[in-house]
Amino acid sequence: MALNPQYEQIGNGFVTQYYGMFDNPATRANLVALYNVEHSFMTFEGQQIQGAAKIQEKLQSLTFQKINRAITAIDSQPMFDGGVLINVLGRLQCDDDPPHAYSQTFILKPLDNSYFCAHDVFRLSIHNSV
Amino acid sequence: MALNPQYEQIGNGFVTQYYGMFDNPATRANLVALYNVEHSFMTFEGQQIQGAAKIQEKLQSLTFQKINRAITAIDSQPMFDGGVLINVLGRLQCDDDPPHAYSQTFILKPLDNSYFCAHDVFRLSIHNSV
Repeated sequence: MALNPQYEQIGNGFVTQYYGMFDNPATRANLVALYNVEHSFMTFEGQQIQGAAKIQEKLQSLTFQKINRAITAIDSQPMFDGGVLINVLGRLQCDDDPPHAYSQTFILKPLDNSYFCAHDVFRLSIHNSV
Repeated sequence: MALNPQYEQIGNGFVTQYYGMFDNPATRANLVALYNVEHSFMTFEGQQIQGAAKIQEKLQSLTFQKINRAITAIDSQPMFDGGVLINVLGRLQCDDDPPHAYSQTFILKPLDNSYFCAHDVFRLSIHNSV
């Protein structure tokens, strides 16, 4: 494997696909198909989860119906194993909660002719001012 | 290589070491020793840089003398190649600039009996409210 020169398109495309599914409560649980049975890690607000089954439980526990999301930056980097690191900064508002800035990092790993999501770290940035 | 069960200590230790050197203008340029000659990527506020020489140039261009930094979250995950993914959220104030929230992601890769920083993505979160 080597650096994939398409890393930026892959990163932007993944973010569009991921949030398109995440922000629709009817398709959110289908995101589990992007993770590996054993080789995927998710850290959601500090809670560490490994493997597709537990990640699916977590996705199904997120019951908000309406999400307003604005992405402010996507920074992607190619990796020497053919993977792609994707860093997203944005703002989101779930149902009637107050809006929050958030950070989400994904690492995609090549598998057959596609990718799976090997790492996913999500955090709200609740303390916005020094 | 396999998952390193010490990933959390490695992540926390790296963050302490990195910012200890970064926040002191006398040692900031020495951070270049943590990066690989060719196999390290840095994205600094959207600017993409590869390799230790260019990363050193970038570090030397950061001339602020005084940094107030507060770390609000460190999320680390082990990687199947023995690496460690580290996500940092924090707030910082450089010299007389206004304080900003920021996000920084590092990926450490094993090399000999230590690690090098293969990926580094830094972004200020300048739009904090929806």
